[in-house]
This record gives sequence, C-alpha cells and structure tokens, in this order.
Amino acid sequence: MSQAFSGAPHGHHADAPAAPSQDPLQIATALAARLAQSANARDQAGGHAAREREWIRESGLLTLSIPTEFGGQGAAWPVVYQVIRILARADSALAHVFGFHHLQLAGIRLYGSAQQQRRLLTDTVAQRLFWGNALNPLDRRTTATEAADGYTLDGVKSFSSGSVGSDWLTVSAWHAPTQSALIGVLPTRQPGVAVQADWDAFGQRQTDSGNVHFAGAALPAGQVLQAPAQPATPQATLRSQVAQLIMANLYLGIGEGAFEAARNYTRDEARPWFASGAASASADPLIQHRYGQLWLLLRPAVVLADHAAVELDRVFNKGAQISARDRGELAVAVAEAKCLAHRAGVEISSQMFELTGARATSAKYGYDRFWRNVRVHTLHDPIDYKYRDLGRFALEGTLPEPTAYS
Amino acid sequence: MSQAFSGAPHGHHADAPAAPSQDPLQIATALAARLAQSANARDQAGGHAAREREWIRESGLLTLSIPTEFGGQGAAWPVVYQVIRILARADSALAHVFGFHHLQLAGIRLYGSAQQQRRLLTDTVAQRLFWGNALNPLDRRTTATEAADGYTLDGVKSFSSGSVGSDWLTVSAWHAPTQSALIGVLPTRQPGVAVQADWDAFGQRQTDSGNVHFAGAALPAGQVLQAPAQPATPQATLRSQVAQLIMANLYLGIGEGAFEAARNYTRDEARPWFASGAASASADPLIQHRYGQLWLLLRPAVVLADHAAVELDRVFNKGAQISARDRGELAVAVAEAKCLAHRAGVEISSQMFELTGARATSAKYGYDRFWRNVRVHTLHDPIDYKYRDLGRFALEGTLPEPTAYS
Amino acid sequence: MSQAFSGAPHGHHADAPAAPSQDPLQIATALAARLAQSANARDQAGGHAAREREWIRESGLLTLSIPTEFGGQGAAWPVVYQVIRILARADSALAHVFGFHHLQLAGIRLYGSAQQQRRLLTDTVAQRLFWGNALNPLDRRTTATEAADGYTLDGVKSFSSGSVGSDWLTVSAWHAPTQSALIGVLPTRQPGVAVQADWDAFGQRQTDSGNVHFAGAALPAGQVLQAPAQPATPQATLRSQVAQLIMANLYLGIGEGAFEAARNYTRDEARPWFASGAASASADPLIQHRYGQLWLLLRPAVVLADHAAVELDRVFNKGAQISARDRGELAVAVAEAKCLAHRAGVEISSQMFELTGARATSAKYGYDRFWRNVRVHTLHDPIDYKYRDLGRFALEGTLPEPTAYS
Amino acid sequence: MSQAFSGAPHGHHADAPAAPSQDPLQIATALAARLAQSANARDQAGGHAAREREWIRESGLLTLSIPTEFGGQGAAWPVVYQVIRILARADSALAHVFGFHHLQLAGIRLYGSAQQQRRLLTDTVAQRLFWGNALNPLDRRTTATEAADGYTLDGVKSFSSGSVGSDWLTVSAWHAPTQSALIGVLPTRQPGVAVQADWDAFGQRQTDSGNVHFAGAALPAGQVLQAPAQPATPQATLRSQVAQLIMANLYLGIGEGAFEAARNYTRDEARPWFASGAASASADPLIQHRYGQLWLLLRPAVVLADHAAVELDRVFNKGAQISARDRGELAVAVAEAKCLAHRAGVEISSQMFELTGARATSAKYGYDRFWRNVRVHTLHDPIDYKYRDLGRFALEGTLPEPTAYS
Repeated sequence: MSQAFSGAPHGHHADAPAAPSQDPLQIATALAARLAQSANARDQAGGHAAREREWIRESGLLTLSIPTEFGGQGAAWPVVYQVIRILARADSALAHVFGFHHLQLAGIRLYGSAQQQRRLLTDTVAQRLFWGNALNPLDRRTTATEAADGYTLDGVKSFSSGSVGSDWLTVSAWHAPTQSALIGVLPTRQPGVAVQADWDAFGQRQTDSGNVHFAGAALPAGQVLQAPAQPATPQATLRSQVAQLIMANLYLGIGEGAFEAARNYTRDEARPWFASGAASASADPLIQHRYGQLWLLLRPAVVLADHAAVELDRVFNKGAQISARDRGELAVAVAEAKCLAHRAGVEISSQMFELTGARATSAKYGYDRFWRNVRVHTLHDPIDYKYRDLGRFALEGTLPEPTAYS
Repeated sequence: MSQAFSGAPHGHHADAPAAPSQDPLQIATALAARLAQSANARDQAGGHAAREREWIRESGLLTLSIPTEFGGQGAAWPVVYQVIRILARADSALAHVFGFHHLQLAGIRLYGSAQQQRRLLTDTVAQRLFWGNALNPLDRRTTATEAADGYTLDGVKSFSSGSVGSDWLTVSAWHAPTQSALIGVLPTRQPGVAVQADWDAFGQRQTDSGNVHFAGAALPAGQVLQAPAQPATPQATLRSQVAQLIMANLYLGIGEGAFEAARNYTRDEARPWFASGAASASADPLIQHRYGQLWLLLRPAVVLADHAAVELDRVFNKGAQISARDRGELAVAVAEAKCLAHRAGVEISSQMFELTGARATSAKYGYDRFWRNVRVHTLHDPIDYKYRDLGRFALEGTLPEPTAYS
Repeated sequence: MSQAFSGAPHGHHADAPAAPSQDPLQIATALAARLAQSANARDQAGGHAAREREWIRESGLLTLSIPTEFGGQGAAWPVVYQVIRILARADSALAHVFGFHHLQLAGIRLYGSAQQQRRLLTDTVAQRLFWGNALNPLDRRTTATEAADGYTLDGVKSFSSGSVGSDWLTVSAWHAPTQSALIGVLPTRQPGVAVQADWDAFGQRQTDSGNVHFAGAALPAGQVLQAPAQPATPQATLRSQVAQLIMANLYLGIGEGAFEAARNYTRDEARPWFASGAASASADPLIQHRYGQLWLLLRPAVVLADHAAVELDRVFNKGAQISARDRGELAVAVAEAKCLAHRAGVEISSQMFELTGARATSAKYGYDRFWRNVRVHTLHDPIDYKYRDLGRFALEGTLPEPTAYS
Repeated sequence: MSQAFSGAPHGHHADAPAAPSQDPLQIATALAARLAQSANARDQAGGHAAREREWIRESGLLTLSIPTEFGGQGAAWPVVYQVIRILARADSALAHVFGFHHLQLAGIRLYGSAQQQRRLLTDTVAQRLFWGNALNPLDRRTTATEAADGYTLDGVKSFSSGSVGSDWLTVSAWHAPTQSALIGVLPTRQPGVAVQADWDAFGQRQTDSGNVHFAGAALPAGQVLQAPAQPATPQATLRSQVAQLIMANLYLGIGEGAFEAARNYTRDEARPWFASGAASASADPLIQHRYGQLWLLLRPAVVLADHAAVELDRVFNKGAQISARDRGELAVAVAEAKCLAHRAGVEISSQMFELTGARATSAKYGYDRFWRNVRVHTLHDPIDYKYRDLGRFALEGTLPEPTAYS
C-alpha cells in the first residue's frame, strides 16, 4: 500500500538504498505489508492484537527513537514520524500503539533525570519493553497520596492507549495537597494495577485504549518523572507537541491509505459511469478533477507534517535550552500540520467513495475503516480550538498556551 | 428522535390533530420510535429484519400510496415521502425497504395497464403484500426469452433492495432480439426464483439488497408491465424520479437523525472543552457557530425536498398527459433536492463528531451508522453527474435526459 | 437580464398575464432593463443617480407596499421582495434605495399611530415621496433633547442609505435622560438637516448612503413614531426583519445578475479551453459541473428567501397581535435566507470568472461590480453571528434576540 | 507590509544579515514600501506606471536572475520568486511586470544559443534593459514569413504583459508553412512595432498588458530563439513552468498583502460586534477562528511555492540534461503550488471583509484591489484543468503534458 506513495514523485521515502534490514523505513514498509493482510479482519474483530504487537516488537522498531548512547537507534524524529505514517497506511490502530510507545519514551527524555533516562531507556532496549499510556490529563480520577517511598496511586484513568499488553506505563495522577498532577512510570503487571480492555469506539479498534485501574499501586520516588507542583518548563511541555505530531501523522497515514485504496479501485475495478462517455473510470474528467482536489488536501498536509517534524527534531534536541518561543513556534507548526492532516484524513476517507461507486462498499474491502479510524482519532482534541489558536497567532502573534493539547 | 424535528418551528408535520390511529405521520412516528430502540443493535447484526418488517406491515403503511379506488389510503406523494423520512431518522435501512415497496407500486401505476393496476394493487391491499425490487437497469445479466405464454427469465440481478422477505418483485430483464429491457412482476416465492441474502455493504445493512437468481422462471404475459422495445413515455420514465426522491428523503432522514443525535449529545452529555471558558458545551460560541453551519446544510435540503415532492405529486397525477417538459422540470427539482440531501447527509453525519467529542464514538451509541448508512446509499448514482445535469440545465436550459438515474 | 431567470423553469415570476402596465413585476422588469443599460457606467461614476431615481418614482412602484386604504397598491411582501430582486439583478444600488424606501414605510406601519400612518402614507402616495434612512442604531452621535413641541436633533448619522435626494427621512436619535433611542420622521429639506454625499465604498456606489448632519433640527411630537424608553413590542422589532430580508433579496438579485452574466458569456463569447477537447465552452464537462455547483448555491437561497417572504407577510399582517414566538420564528427563517443569499452572492460573483476566462475582465463588461456590490452590502452585519444565532436555535431552540440586526 | 510576514515565525526571508544594500530581499522590501504608498491611487488611475518602473530599474533588481558570467547577480530562483512575492504584497501589477521581465530572461536561457544568451543578457545588464512579453501562444494572429535575413512579422498579439514601456520584447509568431510557432526577440522601439496601451481589465491595471501590433517588422535570423518546427525539448518547455510559478507567487503576494491589511485593520480599527461580548474585535472567538482558517489557506500555499521554487532551480540548472521526467515532476510541484496560491489569493481577498466589517470598504483603503488583482490574474489559465492534471497524476502517475500552460 505504501508502494504507491513511495512511487509518487514526491515520496521518495521508501526508495532508500543499501542494507535493507537496517533501514527503518524499509523495515516499516515490510511490517506494514504484513499488517495490511489482516487489517480489515482485525478491524472487524476489534480487541487486542497480541500477535501483531509481537511482530512490531520483533521488527526492532521499538528502539527507533532511543538515543544510541542507551543502545537505541537514535533515529531523528522525521524518521520516527515517517515510520508511524507508513504503518498507519496499513493499520492505524497498531500505528497508534507504536507511536504512543515512542511518546512515552519521549516523555522520559523530556521529564526524567539523567539517571532515570539511562535506566529506563537502557532497560527498554535490553528487555524489549513495550510502553503504554495512562496519562489522560483531563481525567483526574487517579490520585496520588504520599507513601513511605514515593506515592500510592488509586483510581481510574481512561483513554489509556496501548495499555493492554504493555510492559510499562507512563501515568499521571492528581495530587490533592498541591492541586497538581505528578507524572511517573511503573510496570503494567505490578500489584494494584489492572488494565481493563473495554475500549469500544467504532474506530481505532485495536489501540488497546481501555481504562487502567489503580488500587493502592506503589509508585516509588525513583519512578516519579515530574513531581507535583513542579513548574512546567518549555522542555517538559514539549511532550504534547510530540503527541500532537504523532496524531497528525496517523491521520495522514490513514488519508494516504484511503487515497491509495480509492486509486487502486478506480484504476482496477471501477466501471465508467454510463453517462460519462468515458472508456474507463480513470478517463472520466469529473473523476480526474475530484482526484486532483483530494490530492490537494493530501499533499500540503504531508509537506507541512514533514516540515513540522524537522522543526520538532531541532527543538527537541536543544534539551533544557528550549525557550518558550522555540516551543511556541513549534506548536504553531504542529497545529498547522495537525489541522491539515485532520481535514485530509476525514475528507479523503469520506469522499473516496464518490470515486469508486457502490460496489466498493462491500465488507470484503472494509474501506469504511479509513473513515471510522480517522474520525475517532481526530476527536482527541477539538479542531475548532486549533483554528482558534492559529487565528490568535496569525492575528496577534500570540503563541499557543502550553497545555496537554496545544 | 423525530420529535425534535416535529418540535422545531419549521417542521409542523407531526403536529397533526385528531384521530391518531389514522394519521400516517403519527403512525410513522410511533413506528420509528419502535424501530429506534433496536436500530443500533440491528445495524451491528446486519441481516434480515423479519420481525421489524412485520411491524411495518402491521402499521398499515404499505397501502399508503395506493389509490383509494383500489382500497389504499390514497396519500399524496408528499405524505409518502414524509413517512419515509420519519422512518429513516430512526432506521434508514428499513425506511429504504419501505420506500422501495412504494416505488414498485408506483411502477405498476406508471407502466401497468388499467387491468394490471387494478389486480396488483387490489391484491397488495387485500393480501398485505410487501414488494421488492429486482430492476437494476445497469445489470443486464438477467435475460428474457419468449415462452409459450410470455417469457422465461434466466440469470442474476444485483442490488435487489427489499428482495429478501418480499412477496412480489418487480423485475427487469434483457431481451436480446430487441436489444431492450422488459419490465414485469412476479411472486418472489415461485419456482425458478431464488433470493440470495448476500448484501454485505458497510451501511444500510438491513436493506435486503441481495442478488436475485432466475433459473427458467416463468413471466406470464399478463405480468409484463412494459414489453420489450416499447418506447419510453414521459409517464413511464417518471419512475426514476419517484426513486430518486425516495433516496433524497432517505438521505435527509439520516441527516436529521444524525443532527438530532449530535444535538442531544451536546446538550445532555458533552463537556465544555477546557480551553473554551464556556460553562457548557452548548454555550461554546464555536460549537454554536458550527451547528449553525450544519443547520444551513439541512434546512434548504428539507425545503427543496418538500418542494420537489409537491411537484412530483402534481406531475404524477397528470398520468398519460405528462409531457416531456413536465418530466424534465421535475427531474431538475428532484436533482436539486437529491444533491442537497446527499451533501447534508454526508457532511452532518461526519461533522457531528466535531460537536460531540471522543466519547460519543462508543459502540453503545452506534453513531457511526449515520455516516455508514448515508455513505453507502448516496453511491446509488454519482453526484458529479447530477451536478453536470444541473449545470447543463442552468447553462443552456437542457432538461436531464430521461434515464433510470436522471 | 431578468429574462433568463423568468425563463427558467422555477422562476415563473415574470410570466404574469394580462394588463402589463398594472403588474408590478412587469413594471419592475421593464425598469430593470432600463437601468441595466447604464448600470456599468454609473457604477464607474458613482455618486447620485438623480435621473434614475426619477424613473423609479415615475414607475409608480414607490406606493407598492402602501395599503390600498391609503391609496397604495397594497402588494403583499413577497411581491415587494420580488421587485427588489428584479431591480437588483440590473442595479443593486438603486434596488437598495428602492428597498429602503419601503423599509421606512414599513417602519411607519410598525411604529406609527393610526393617525401617523394615515397622514404619512397618504402623503407619500399623493406627493410621490421618496423616503431615506437615517436610523443606524449603532451610531449614537445624533442626540435628541426635549423642545417646546417635541425634540431638537443634533449630531451626525452615518450609513444613511438613500438620504441624498430623499424627500423624507426616518431618523433615530439618542435620548440621554432615558439612555434610549427615539425614532421619528422629518422632511429632508428642513432647516437644520444637511445630507452629505460622502459615501465612498467600493461597491453599492449609488446608494446615497452618506452622513446626515443635524444642527438644531426640529422634530415635532407628532412626528415621533417611537418615544424614548418605549418598550419594544414584537411588532416594533419586526422592522429589522423587514430590513434583513430586503438585504437577502438584494444579495440574491446580485447573485442572479452575476449568474446570468456568466451564463450568457459562457454561451456566447467564451472559447473552449484548448486542453478540454470540447467543441464549445458550454460543452466542457468541467464547466457544466461548476455551473451545477453554483446553481446549487443560488436555487436554495431563492427558495428560502421566497419562503421567508411568505412568512414575513403572514406575521406582519397580524399587527399588534404578533407574538414573540411569531417574531422569533420569522427571524430564524429570515436568517436562514440571508445566510444562504450572502454565500450565493459572494461565491457566484467571485467564481463566475472561472467560467468565463480572462477576457471577461475587461472594463467594458464591468462584471466585477457584482462582487463589489455584494461584498460591500453583505457587511451590513456579520454572517458569523447569524450562524451563531441559527446554531443556538438549532441546538436549544433559542429564538434570536430581537435587535436591530436579528 | 512585508514586515508582518517577515516577522512571523515561519517567514525568515527578510531577516537576512549583513550588507543591506546588497541583499535583494532587503532591496525588494524597501522598493515594496515605496510602491505601497501610491499603490491604491495608481490602481484607481490605471495606465502606465512610468515612474515606478524606473524605480524598479534603479533598484538593480532587473539583473537579479542573470548569471554572474554575464554580469548579473546570479540569484537562485527561490530568491527571484521571493522578490516577486514581496513586491506583489504591495503592488501586484508592477510585481507582474517585474516577474515577466525575468521570464523573458529565462526564455533566452532556455531557448537561446550560447551566443544569443551572452549577447542579450550582457546587453540587458549593460543597458539596464526592461523586457516585455508578446508571446501569448493561444493568439495566432501574428504571423512570420520568411525574409532575406530572417522573418517579417505581421499581425497583433494580445495579453502582452509589460510591453508598454519595455525596451525589448520576446515574441511568438505563427509560421504557416510549418504550422508551428517561432520565438524571437526584438527591440520594442523598432520600425513596424507598435504597442497599444489598451489593457482595461478590472484588476492588475498597471501591468501594461496591451496589444502589440506588428506591421512588416523585421526579425533577423540572429534574433530567432526557436525556429519554426523545432521540436520542443524538456529544457525549452520549462519556460511555462517558470511562468506558472511567477503567477503562483504573485497570487501569494496578493494573498499575503490582503491578509496583512485585514489583520492590521482588525487589530487597529475594527470595533467588536455588539453581540459578541468581546472587548475587542481581536478577542472575538469567531474572528480568531476565521483567521485560523484563512491562515491555513495561506501557509501551505507559501510552503509549497517555496518547495516548488527549490525544485525549479534544481531542474533549471540541469540545462540541456533536463529529462522529460524532471520536467514533468516539476510541473506537478508547480501545479500544486499554483492551485493552492490561486485559492488562497481569491478566498483571502474576498473573505477578509468578514473580518473587518463595512467601514473597511471605504475607497480610502482600496482593499478591493486585492480581490480584483488576484481575480484577474488567476484567470491566466483555468484552475479546473490544473485539478484535472493533478488528478491524472495522482490517479495514474501521468505527468502533465508540456504545453504553454502546463
């Protein structure tokens, strides 16, 4: 599926040369092809994709973003995002799980002490750990109370992507005394932690985004990445930008997958409409015209996502030197990319059917999953507030307020 | 669900007075409420809704469009279309089956001899018959060959909506000697006719739109409504307009159902976005603004559909006096309504989620069915060719060429 | 220019029969044809169209909306709005002046006592008076202070459409003691009133919408239509709806004029694009397709404007019996029509050039005046707040708050 | 005006360091500021901007794209396009004249022999020549007939941008014997050449795009850049891409100018709408939201235009080695940029008024010129055929056919 995009003049990403087993884009392309074979069936089935998550682990891509000093591959962020996009063309649910694994690793690098980074990232490489998320900042039902060595966690955390089947979790918990949240990490299979596989959205069905329940779970002090009441530095607040750009690339991967599916169908299976007078569907000027319009939704979104990835890499690598302006300008670039990707994904996955006709709605193709996946995922945070943020920036130069979503 | 629209200032349709058991709009509203309770579950299950089709039969609405002289209710077309729309708000698959039943009855009135009309429509009332469709004109695989008394039918007919569970079918068959199609009617459960319940689209899942297989099925001369090589009169070609306006009203009913679901959710369940500063989601100016835009997709589509229904009724009742101009101007009005309903349905069912947020994607609501239903159904024939037809009319006054789709 | 629309299947308005000299639509059509000849030249020149305003006076249409009991023609509001639209196709500036004349007359009927109505409307018929507007409610620079018999007016009033060349004016003035506005009428050429012809917008250039200066101008008590601190009745607040629907019809007339100009150009002058392979521009499927899309902007706007006009007539004629609900539901219908007309006017007048090509930009056609006129006029009040009002209604059934703009 | 964009986080172009008098972007910025002062007045006046053209000549920017070996500045194409955009923010008519000067120079480099290049470009530097265009390939009224030394030209050539006031012209002429066009260059003020200043479009009024009349004008063999019947090489057909990207940057400059004007007006002069409850127009969430949407029209267009400029520079510099695939892929990138710039320019220049309100339509601002300029210029060739070309590429990988427009 990625082939079409790699074959297109602007998408040289899969043309990489030499040692194929080493190139993450080639590995991702091969992995995507493998996932694609069962993507429709697994979307129908929902639930946990244990076997496919092992394929991801075996691919070695879980260490992609980890610095070489800790044994990782030290890939730049643009490469990580490309890999997410390649996987999302085939299977956006597992691409999400994969992306959020790297988001947790980014969190460790942005919040963690040097010692925490070394230990956690080294362990991740050595033990081939798969990380999940339990950090939803809008859900304050999980609380942290002081304990002998650290904190005790109690309560529920919703929208915990990748939690089912994970080895370790990043978690946020509300600390009442300081009226603030702490952030920590803990093994998923420790006492007092229970992952509930109850995610039942109509899309992104295998993202394992269930509720995590904490009942007296111990969070030792050494596993607290960000203590309560700690002021948020520009570096720490960069995590939301890493996350937002993961989403943009997931939306884009879905959009590319949908575009590709429509294109193949139009070329290979669609019949020309009897009133068109055209010899084939591909030769119909109205179909060509609409493909041109959809292309103009997709291409700018891709270019701006790639641009934002380069910026993110540049800023991320400044580490503690990241200024509020660096962070804010990056947030603008990421918001631009995310809005464009949102629209490209939703529009292409819905309009693609105008280009294929009724027969393409058969369950054997499962083409509705593109819309369902992107529709569910684009609701992570409201696009109208991204427009507002961009408007404030365009109008008065105001940089987006650092939050968990902007 | 229909209540919200009946309560809205412009939708007085359900406010009708007096004897409730007689008013088809009240009957439809009650039936819709009953269907709504299981609509999400049945959408998930797919397949044939035998029980619910009996509810429709029991409602008495199957005789709605049949002239009183044949024992029917003699409702005007605007009433029939309103009923379709009311049902579609709750369950667009069964509304489709219901609408296509009346389409078959319209065909009998438009093609049939006086004697055929009397016999078939009287029988439909007396025996409470449910009609299905096997008429797809683009599928020429079913052939008619001359037989002793009439014709013998062989082959397959796809996209046969409402065929599963029907009592009688309207069928078209290709007649090679004249290189034209005949149209006839026959009982579904006669020898040589087999209905295959293999409809597997991702939406409109209970429309029973499978393949009908004919193997030496007898079509007696008396059941031929339109013989091969018979020139198409403006009256006969009106059938496609009845069908197109059924679709427009189905799309609208879906759009209204989606709008209503979003509205209720925003009012009753959605939380205000933290960055909005609003006390409730309903008080958020960006949410209000977007509701206004969606309303402006829905309202004009409703008004133009109602307008087209009045026109259709007027033209239909001219019978054999229908001129090509009558027919053509009606086709323009119907095309206008269908394009607007198409856009309203697809846009509202997709954008509704911007107004509800992520939690509304839970399977317990099943809100994705609105998009899936309207997306599948709007592919009946390509909207780009409706735009083209309207453009030709607007540009040069050219009336749409009478076809099975325009 | 109006011919094309009268000839279209849906626009029977100009086909009226019998005594042509009596039918206001025929009179308007003839007047529009006369105005059309110099519309481009007068748009270039700007300023006051003294001669053409006399043509309007001579047409007799200034008495159109005046009840027969006062010697007027007693036309229903749908007819008045049709006439405004017909004139706007040819010359939207003079159509605006004409429409606002009738708005002042409506104000007299909505605010004035029985005696005031009789005197002012009878005089308007007898003396063939032309009324202008000096009522901008957002401009509070004109003040009213108590005087011996009534009030004395001082200050400036901006955006006074039709003031230049008018015989009488409706005026609002701020009354400091009560912190409210009064509304009155006075002759334009009385001492202390000076009309400044300084309107310099880039469109609607001949609307005579200058500043009116008051310097100790007397407003006798008998000419006060609405005293200070008088509570606004639903009837009184209907004036803004009469005004808003005038605007909608002006936008629509401009849209129709632009559509017509494009259509004629495409048919008669445009060359097929070399890459189209079409024999004529009209035969190009991409051009036909775009015409279809523009038609679907125009048609619903026309239908909803006509629908709103019928509603307005019904509500207006209830007089003092108008309820807040009547008024609010009408305001919704008018807002719907105005938003659709706004979009149709702005989009068609801008996109028309995609359908004509570069040569149609020659000054000899002056086709840019459609966009300039509708662009200026659609800024009367912001469309985003109309969307918000409609959203509030759609979401919670809230009727628009009665203001001078909603 | 350019300041706002240079100050924005993504627009570092004017931040260039060091010797200001040498930096073409700084020179352009200063020149734009000078042009801006009279841009509104000169738009109103139309006609030939003799004085301002001298300012351009004096700026030294006429040698910008000329290779250093011929005495020019040897600027890369991205710099040339940036300069065009900077000028277009202030005055898109003169920016067009400037851009087309460099288009003629590009033509010499793409078609001309080594000797022609040396002579013509050296002369351009030495004599500070200003070049104009007389090449409209769709206008075949100018013919070339064989003469003693070269050809004789007769006939008219329309849409000859920059011809009035030019020193030299590039001209195309139809050669009947071979049924093909030749391309040559000649001094504007030679016998038999008459430039008619009859350009009267409603926008881009000072582009000097009149008709050029040839009456027995001599075209010596040494001035023929491309002889009749000469096969078009990929290199030669690159000229249309240089031209298309000039247009994209002109549209963008207009869009940026309009955006900037709206932004300044909203911030400095607009009043909050009374129903908004906002303290200022800039604080109104609906205004912020719409600015965000317009920004998302502008930004991607800028990024893709810059991307295409880099590609164009890369391909251009391959010279005779340019392959058909190089040329085709570049044409895709340029078409993408041009479509996005087209939409950004037209939409922003029209929608800007929703963000400013009615008072911004005063002639003293002349803000309508943005729409008029971009509307006229975007009609150079139809956008619907660009969509079609992009659709063909996206669907089947077909590269745009090399023509004078694609």
